[in-house]
Amino acid sequence: MSFNTFGKIFRFTTWGESHGPAIGCVVDGCPPNILLSQKDIQIDMDRRRPGKSKFTSQRKEFDKVKILSGVFHGKTTGTPISMIIYNEDAKSRDYESIKNKFRPGHADYTYLMKYGIRDYRGGGRQSARETAARVAAGAIAKKVLKSLIGKKFKIVSAVTQLGILACDKKNWNEKEIKKNSFFCPDKKSVKIWEKYLLAVRKSGSSCGAVIEIRTSGVPVGLGAPIYSKLDSDLTSALMSINAVKGVNIGAGMNSAFLSGEENSDEMRQSNKNLKFKSNNAGGILGGISTGQDIITSFAVKPTSSILNERETVNKKGKNTKISVKGRHDPCVGIRAVPIGEAMTACVLLDHYLLNRSQCG
Amino acid sequence: MSFNTFGKIFRFTTWGESHGPAIGCVVDGCPPNILLSQKDIQIDMDRRRPGKSKFTSQRKEFDKVKILSGVFHGKTTGTPISMIIYNEDAKSRDYESIKNKFRPGHADYTYLMKYGIRDYRGGGRQSARETAARVAAGAIAKKVLKSLIGKKFKIVSAVTQLGILACDKKNWNEKEIKKNSFFCPDKKSVKIWEKYLLAVRKSGSSCGAVIEIRTSGVPVGLGAPIYSKLDSDLTSALMSINAVKGVNIGAGMNSAFLSGEENSDEMRQSNKNLKFKSNNAGGILGGISTGQDIITSFAVKPTSSILNERETVNKKGKNTKISVKGRHDPCVGIRAVPIGEAMTACVLLDHYLLNRSQCG
Amino acid sequence: MSFNTFGKIFRFTTWGESHGPAIGCVVDGCPPNILLSQKDIQIDMDRRRPGKSKFTSQRKEFDKVKILSGVFHGKTTGTPISMIIYNEDAKSRDYESIKNKFRPGHADYTYLMKYGIRDYRGGGRQSARETAARVAAGAIAKKVLKSLIGKKFKIVSAVTQLGILACDKKNWNEKEIKKNSFFCPDKKSVKIWEKYLLAVRKSGSSCGAVIEIRTSGVPVGLGAPIYSKLDSDLTSALMSINAVKGVNIGAGMNSAFLSGEENSDEMRQSNKNLKFKSNNAGGILGGISTGQDIITSFAVKPTSSILNERETVNKKGKNTKISVKGRHDPCVGIRAVPIGEAMTACVLLDHYLLNRSQCG
Amino acid sequence: MSFNTFGKIFRFTTWGESHGPAIGCVVDGCPPNILLSQKDIQIDMDRRRPGKSKFTSQRKEFDKVKILSGVFHGKTTGTPISMIIYNEDAKSRDYESIKNKFRPGHADYTYLMKYGIRDYRGGGRQSARETAARVAAGAIAKKVLKSLIGKKFKIVSAVTQLGILACDKKNWNEKEIKKNSFFCPDKKSVKIWEKYLLAVRKSGSSCGAVIEIRTSGVPVGLGAPIYSKLDSDLTSALMSINAVKGVNIGAGMNSAFLSGEENSDEMRQSNKNLKFKSNNAGGILGGISTGQDIITSFAVKPTSSILNERETVNKKGKNTKISVKGRHDPCVGIRAVPIGEAMTACVLLDHYLLNRSQCG
Repeated sequence: MSFNTFGKIFRFTTWGESHGPAIGCVVDGCPPNILLSQKDIQIDMDRRRPGKSKFTSQRKEFDKVKILSGVFHGKTTGTPISMIIYNEDAKSRDYESIKNKFRPGHADYTYLMKYGIRDYRGGGRQSARETAARVAAGAIAKKVLKSLIGKKFKIVSAVTQLGILACDKKNWNEKEIKKNSFFCPDKKSVKIWEKYLLAVRKSGSSCGAVIEIRTSGVPVGLGAPIYSKLDSDLTSALMSINAVKGVNIGAGMNSAFLSGEENSDEMRQSNKNLKFKSNNAGGILGGISTGQDIITSFAVKPTSSILNERETVNKKGKNTKISVKGRHDPCVGIRAVPIGEAMTACVLLDHYLLNRSQCG
Repeated sequence: MSFNTFGKIFRFTTWGESHGPAIGCVVDGCPPNILLSQKDIQIDMDRRRPGKSKFTSQRKEFDKVKILSGVFHGKTTGTPISMIIYNEDAKSRDYESIKNKFRPGHADYTYLMKYGIRDYRGGGRQSARETAARVAAGAIAKKVLKSLIGKKFKIVSAVTQLGILACDKKNWNEKEIKKNSFFCPDKKSVKIWEKYLLAVRKSGSSCGAVIEIRTSGVPVGLGAPIYSKLDSDLTSALMSINAVKGVNIGAGMNSAFLSGEENSDEMRQSNKNLKFKSNNAGGILGGISTGQDIITSFAVKPTSSILNERETVNKKGKNTKISVKGRHDPCVGIRAVPIGEAMTACVLLDHYLLNRSQCG
Repeated sequence: MSFNTFGKIFRFTTWGESHGPAIGCVVDGCPPNILLSQKDIQIDMDRRRPGKSKFTSQRKEFDKVKILSGVFHGKTTGTPISMIIYNEDAKSRDYESIKNKFRPGHADYTYLMKYGIRDYRGGGRQSARETAARVAAGAIAKKVLKSLIGKKFKIVSAVTQLGILACDKKNWNEKEIKKNSFFCPDKKSVKIWEKYLLAVRKSGSSCGAVIEIRTSGVPVGLGAPIYSKLDSDLTSALMSINAVKGVNIGAGMNSAFLSGEENSDEMRQSNKNLKFKSNNAGGILGGISTGQDIITSFAVKPTSSILNERETVNKKGKNTKISVKGRHDPCVGIRAVPIGEAMTACVLLDHYLLNRSQCG
Repeated sequence: MSFNTFGKIFRFTTWGESHGPAIGCVVDGCPPNILLSQKDIQIDMDRRRPGKSKFTSQRKEFDKVKILSGVFHGKTTGTPISMIIYNEDAKSRDYESIKNKFRPGHADYTYLMKYGIRDYRGGGRQSARETAARVAAGAIAKKVLKSLIGKKFKIVSAVTQLGILACDKKNWNEKEIKKNSFFCPDKKSVKIWEKYLLAVRKSGSSCGAVIEIRTSGVPVGLGAPIYSKLDSDLTSALMSINAVKGVNIGAGMNSAFLSGEENSDEMRQSNKNLKFKSNNAGGILGGISTGQDIITSFAVKPTSSILNERETVNKKGKNTKISVKGRHDPCVGIRAVPIGEAMTACVLLDHYLLNRSQCG
């Protein structure tokens, strides 16, 4: 069973509400004797942190992560690693305007109907604030994977589509991703996206995004058929991120348009290495990694909270209207980049350990 | 942990290889006192069964399901329901031509690399034959859901895109689906698809497909945030089906193209009922069902085994070529319809039971 | 979740009722490339088989196990191993006398109250017939452990107390166990037990038993603190066997009588080997194996179905009486020996694989 | 999988080391809308708290529990309840004398062998300090059970044997338990135990204990055959407590001594209620609760850390000796009372929710 716990062997449990005193994460099943410091984790926390650019959430959070257990003399001990992040910007606000209204596109209505009670402050548990805890877990997973696999393990994530504008993936430049506010891998798209997103925000609206994650150095053989296939678990992990509505492995939804010849990646042997001539499979066949790059992509829907007024219903069953006051986040998809990366790292480590158990 | 077991409370375990003596399924956690007969299950088995039309696999299987336990005097007892399906067309064939070659697009290479051994007869465990066992589990799930929810529960599945040809969803006609060989809901597309698929097959190639599943009557409140969200579990379930490469919930990958206004489904109260003005969310918000129709779609890649020759490698690391002899199945996606439906039903029942446990 | 599935990585699912067509077991998570034949399993099936001696159940079953999947060319493939055992002695009997009465000491009442329905034929699912399926799983676990650990792995099980008569454990002789009908390790006790048990049976009554299991060759380091400790999992496994009411690890319940000096097993280094001077811990400290012999024991209550009349209630809530007709089994504990051994082997293999995953 | 997580639906995860900054517990799957305050939890924390009597650990801890999430406006919300307890007495001590020695009866050796690293400060993760987190989870479980079942739900725990001295259970007086330092239910035994334990302590030794837990008001039908039987899960829960070596359900190990007539609890109908004439089964038949009191007992081994010198080995493989300096805890079993009670409550709530899921 898993409500707030993710994973099979490398498992993490997150807790906390948007406007409670803190949020946190307990990582269990981490192999022992891996070098780990708070700094290792903070790097990724800072990548996700809100309030950094004019294009993302204006919430002010330093997201300082603190390790409370599981690390001794700078190394993991194999016992649970508990991490806490205090909510600093969780000041008492005026929630009167939204506490009794169901925000369209949000989970206000479904949480209340399911549980009969909900913490309405900043969305409570349904807030994307929870994803900070995932990023902390993912940072550990990446550190462990690098330790187990070596330097060839690398995971690169980028926004490849912003609203209606796709970047040109032929121009994919890994270094470019860190240089702009969009995690955009195509230098040429950055300026256009900038103009576009400013216009979207100015109009009081929002837009969606597509994120792509490329992982190299993953050994062949990870994935547990039939019901813990690597692609199945990656998809589930990505779909669990707030606002994600579609997930692709390799060619993904576009597979339907391909012919059998185009789609099936041919194999060649050269210099004692087996090579694939293409990677429509996204590095996974029959739910098991092929040794190629693992390639996934996912779509994030446009921010639901916008300036423009929307029709909705309140708790008493009366029709009403709703809109966000002040500045809003025109594209929540951008901040999904480090989150998707974190979830991917956790799934890969989990399967690395699982494979070790069954196949030695 | 789950290798060959699916689900949390309503769980099924499948076993068997394509050319072993039999395949089967053990359903556990089924509520007691539900009327159930072999006939209830056979109906769905027959929908998936190969050899029925010229457009699907020519394997001759009657797929007669036999219940071995868990049903007493025509009712479920709450104990495991074991079902067996004998492999009738698993005759001794000549596998010499493929047993040492890795078929591109198949899991031959990854299974061998992972396990160091593989049953090459008809793909062994990686064969889509395994999905017959899922369909049996899904038939039980549907029976139970109808018993628990009532007649308003309905699940309808169709092929909405065949290769490059999308049907017109405005013409969606539920009754039409049963009338043609494609599970196509749009009468006008049937003839065009027929010509197209015959041409694809004649050319020795294959094509992909997109399947859409619409479930109505699902109560609000199903889904377990954060890591067993209903959408997350549905996606994982669909992605576990052989050859699936992409999964959408509601607007899915297209969400990226929508504006905030277009995407967030507005709500209205009328006659004491809360209604949504659209369903881009696919009936799920924050991982919890909204009471709207649950809408998912997924892409199946084109059949990997085709008549046209493809380059590949053999077990000894020599470059070679491979092609299928005789008749082939030009679009495996068609038979994915009852399988996707079965997996959907299993996930929904699982969450129905899970919600009952936590929220009474 | 686990209703009818046992284990974490090496997992088995059992199904079937006492008087249905068959019972069976699906073993999942078994490492690949292990030599395995039906014969390997049949040896243990025969040890548990009823009808062998005058002191155990008179049910005539050959318990012929058949492997339906997961083994290819004599080796495990890493895919699920499905086994089936047909019920041969499940003839139509006259259940009228017991179908509406609750047998004291049996689960008739609790099953009916829980599920609202029960298969009363021979106890249905609550029958100890289910344990035949466990023995099949355990036989595989033992084969795998021997393959992974080597010849030094050995598991020996015996009855150390029959009713009120304890054997003298100082006379423990492994070879003796196979020679008598009681799995008794003390030659001197055999004749006394024989007389005692015949008297018990003749009087229409029954008696309990204590079984002890000693496993040697288990490497240090198995066990997953805090909630999957090796002792915790062994205890749970043994307690799940029909009619078991108490479980000890090492000194067990007697630990309460020991002083701190007597109880804590002192350690000594000699010839580069760490040795313990005693084994009150039963080979487990902090939930982790020490490398010493793993020693567990458990009590089986006396057979509930006896010739002597007992007071009870029927389904309609009327007071009535009940007794068994014909021959009965005076001590069900004897046949628990191979079952406890099977469960022990499954737990140990599970933890062997689990430890490999986390600690490499 | 479960390393540091316990439970199926009502699940808790504990973290923290004896001498780290804090320990904690995340409770997941708690039903919503249950009244819950820190005070509800603190009551049980105080029962387990060390430093209260001269007979238990002299560690000074206030064990102040703080709720960080999952409770809103005084009620549970169905989201994870995170609790933290700061380690106040975790001052920097001189561990030089024990950090390189393996304490007999402790898990020093096994942790180091398993993980290759261990936090030696106060036993690190293997310390019984972890059980404070369980008590917090158990306090929530009790609150929820009382809310769901009503006032008739009651759980009473006591020490029934201290070292070699059993109390007279015929004198069981629930009110007496709270009045003495031993959780002893028999007033007459208190003074004798007091003398005995002082003598044990004075001699530099220690003794074990037997704890008994009686739960009334548990509805018939809880327990999930075959591998999540209520007795099996209770046993596993109790065996996971530090220093526990044996567990009984009802008559337990003594069942072996009973005759079939004595053991099987006869049933009688009176005033439309089904009554049992005895309760050797401990309220569980076939793994399912009968509606009678659930009765379990377990043995705790004597404290391993004693004043008297013991032989052991150090990390370098040299023979050496070890003894505890200063005051020691002569019977750790006493403090196991609230822990056993907490684990029992968690298992019962878990099965209550699980049964609701499957049987409505």
